[in-house]
Amino acid sequence: MSETWAKSVDLHLDLSGTRVRLRLETALRDAVRTGRLGPGTRLPSSRALAVDLGIARNTVAEVYSQLVAEGWLTARTGSGTSVAERRAAEPGPGPAARAEAAAPRYDLRPGVPDLSAFPDGAWLAAARKVLASAPRGLLGYPDPRGLPQLRTALAGYLARARGVAADPGHIVICAGFAHGLAVTCAALRSAGAATLAVEAYGHRAHRDLAQAQGLRLRPLPVDASGAVIGDADDADGAEGAEGADAALLTPAHQFPLGVTLHPRRRREAARWGGVVIEDDYDGEFRYDRQPVGALQALAPDRVIYAGTASKSLAPALRLGWLVVPPPLLDAIAAQLTAAPSGLDQLILAEFIDSGGYDRQIRRARLAYRRRRDRLTAALSRQGRHVTGIAAGLHALLELPGTGTEQDLVARAAEHGLALEGLDSFRAPGTRTGRAGLVIGYGRPAEHAYTTALARLCAVLDR
Amino acid sequence: MSETWAKSVDLHLDLSGTRVRLRLETALRDAVRTGRLGPGTRLPSSRALAVDLGIARNTVAEVYSQLVAEGWLTARTGSGTSVAERRAAEPGPGPAARAEAAAPRYDLRPGVPDLSAFPDGAWLAAARKVLASAPRGLLGYPDPRGLPQLRTALAGYLARARGVAADPGHIVICAGFAHGLAVTCAALRSAGAATLAVEAYGHRAHRDLAQAQGLRLRPLPVDASGAVIGDADDADGAEGAEGADAALLTPAHQFPLGVTLHPRRRREAARWGGVVIEDDYDGEFRYDRQPVGALQALAPDRVIYAGTASKSLAPALRLGWLVVPPPLLDAIAAQLTAAPSGLDQLILAEFIDSGGYDRQIRRARLAYRRRRDRLTAALSRQGRHVTGIAAGLHALLELPGTGTEQDLVARAAEHGLALEGLDSFRAPGTRTGRAGLVIGYGRPAEHAYTTALARLCAVLDR
Repeated sequence: MSETWAKSVDLHLDLSGTRVRLRLETALRDAVRTGRLGPGTRLPSSRALAVDLGIARNTVAEVYSQLVAEGWLTARTGSGTSVAERRAAEPGPGPAARAEAAAPRYDLRPGVPDLSAFPDGAWLAAARKVLASAPRGLLGYPDPRGLPQLRTALAGYLARARGVAADPGHIVICAGFAHGLAVTCAALRSAGAATLAVEAYGHRAHRDLAQAQGLRLRPLPVDASGAVIGDADDADGAEGAEGADAALLTPAHQFPLGVTLHPRRRREAARWGGVVIEDDYDGEFRYDRQPVGALQALAPDRVIYAGTASKSLAPALRLGWLVVPPPLLDAIAAQLTAAPSGLDQLILAEFIDSGGYDRQIRRARLAYRRRRDRLTAALSRQGRHVTGIAAGLHALLELPGTGTEQDLVARAAEHGLALEGLDSFRAPGTRTGRAGLVIGYGRPAEHAYTTALARLCAVLDR
Repeated sequence: MSETWAKSVDLHLDLSGTRVRLRLETALRDAVRTGRLGPGTRLPSSRALAVDLGIARNTVAEVYSQLVAEGWLTARTGSGTSVAERRAAEPGPGPAARAEAAAPRYDLRPGVPDLSAFPDGAWLAAARKVLASAPRGLLGYPDPRGLPQLRTALAGYLARARGVAADPGHIVICAGFAHGLAVTCAALRSAGAATLAVEAYGHRAHRDLAQAQGLRLRPLPVDASGAVIGDADDADGAEGAEGADAALLTPAHQFPLGVTLHPRRRREAARWGGVVIEDDYDGEFRYDRQPVGALQALAPDRVIYAGTASKSLAPALRLGWLVVPPPLLDAIAAQLTAAPSGLDQLILAEFIDSGGYDRQIRRARLAYRRRRDRLTAALSRQGRHVTGIAAGLHALLELPGTGTEQDLVARAAEHGLALEGLDSFRAPGTRTGRAGLVIGYGRPAEHAYTTALARLCAVLDR
């Protein structure tokens, strides 16, 4: 009987080898889980099954008892062992068959640095040093605001490299800029803020994220002097940030238009009554003169400075930092539900303290500057002129007609080249009228850049 | 005039060496930032200052122009350069002088594993392998739900080790259990859930976190069979989870009481109408028999399984995972504002795939079991009996009288030993009546355990 039974439930048992017990247990569990053994089904006695399968009775009894403990089976004295009654598992959708869009062969979209330039060796060396020397207690639960080691290293770095007025106690470590922005928006919202002014062109993901935290958006025009903050003195009648509680700005290198916020506008931003979130995503990469210091230093009581390792090292690290005006610190800390790895924080601190981070930035700045020069040279041979090139990893190529972007992007895709049009960064409610390509020249690996550039020129030249 | 001026603002310039420009710029910026140069202060002409300092006029002019660009200074034709008007920075509180409580010399509080057992070498080897072999695109922005490589590795591991019914597409990687819980609570709340049943004894941080997401708490009694889920059949008149929308449970090894959820209760939990969050924080560490499989497998359409690397590797990694019923996946993904490092995710995937993770667990299980045996032996020599010892990294020592805990904890602290009383885990609104110590025997480093144990015995024996 039992052998038939075992066959009828498709146990497919090969019990001749070792680990008999585990295999019997797995087979029975699977049979119950998949429904081959329905609720209420009575199982053979352990003695009967043991005889039929040629194994020890004790083994079968142990398996039964384990599965009873797990709730798959029930055992009642006198009536033997049977499959437990349970809610039938609904099948649910299969594995989300998200057909990953095949990655393009060449990619000049903005927002990602050259990932092949990640300093493997130096990063591993810092990791080795940290594990060898850091007190073991640091592998416990990290301070939700970030490890003091990293906050101290960053305070020094940010003061030195970006002119940020940073006390380690005012720094909060977050899991990349988007996480920092989400936490900041949630904190502002909980403090009563309702409206966030955003640059009319920017990352859609950032706008979405602010809205998901309950903030209304108010787009700020961006002209050749950067975002229009004030309300009165602007010639084109733009409204500015008046009426907003906070503003999200990219002062050093507007994303994606590439302009630097004019000193007059910087002062306006510093004097403005609301909270400014300064997204300093690529402030380290300034080519033609000394970096413009952070806006934060002009009004450390009003500006939340946000930086990230996503451009300087790699987005995968998910490491970012906020320098927060003291009155906002607790509200922001209260919104932190996630922290980056404490081990990674120590590695980055070691990397900064050892000078490795500065070296990496200098090397990358040189490489990106060379790429920028090749881009401008190649396009100027076609009589084209890119702007926003004083800093960062992207440039703007304005196009004459508004309908032209999508055609170009589509044509480039046919040639294995990914491009992104200016329009995909435009905030809803902003008037159209500009067309262009936002060219992320930092993204390709060094060896692929020549071809990427050639294809760009070919696509533009048609 | 200018020399006097420079001295009067305490520039302390030593301009004899190199990088004159940078030092002058820094000195001036600092002077403005700290208020030594007040708003409106007129600066010497670039020529006058250059002569006084014995440097090139061009250098001074460049510095002025840089600081004008940064908004520190203003320049008006005809009236020279002066310090910009700006909002005075409020001083704000100094560095949060959080006097870190001096770490106790010996620590038997629960919740943290032996951090000295972190597998440095194997982890670094996995990191090296990942950096050497993973496609560079993986260093970009990670999938917010987690990298497919880790989700696939975990699906295999969880099925094998914990009997979890896990499709990689249903796994969400999070930054440790607390992050997973916050995200889950936010998703449940946004789907209309109002009340979360929690075990009457558990982590206060978890309860706080659920409340911060807007959920009301309803404590569930915990008896010798684990949490009381059902409402009718329980002899002591407890109410159970009736009326709650979801329940947070620790079925494999109740935290902190240490009991395993009885098979009957497991079936009740699986049949229950609400969503169960299964906190499987130490399910890998089962000593006296095969691990009790995850509750999730009994009702994969209702149970959110939550696991973590915090006990098996180290809390610092901030790596956890949820196995989510497909209908809840999108709601949970919508709440993710942070993701752990993609690099760390690849390293853990490699560590699992290479067998290193299993080896680490086996080694740790053996070591913790030995410690548990030493604990029970030492206390039984005093005629004391600990419970909840079939699994995990902690045991419960019940004490006869309710007022005794705090005395013991205080006395132990005097001897450099940190202990934690049962009462600190009790949910508000739960009746008192039990007293005890929750002894985290996994926490000390191997070499410190003997002394920690001796001090525990001494304190108890007084």
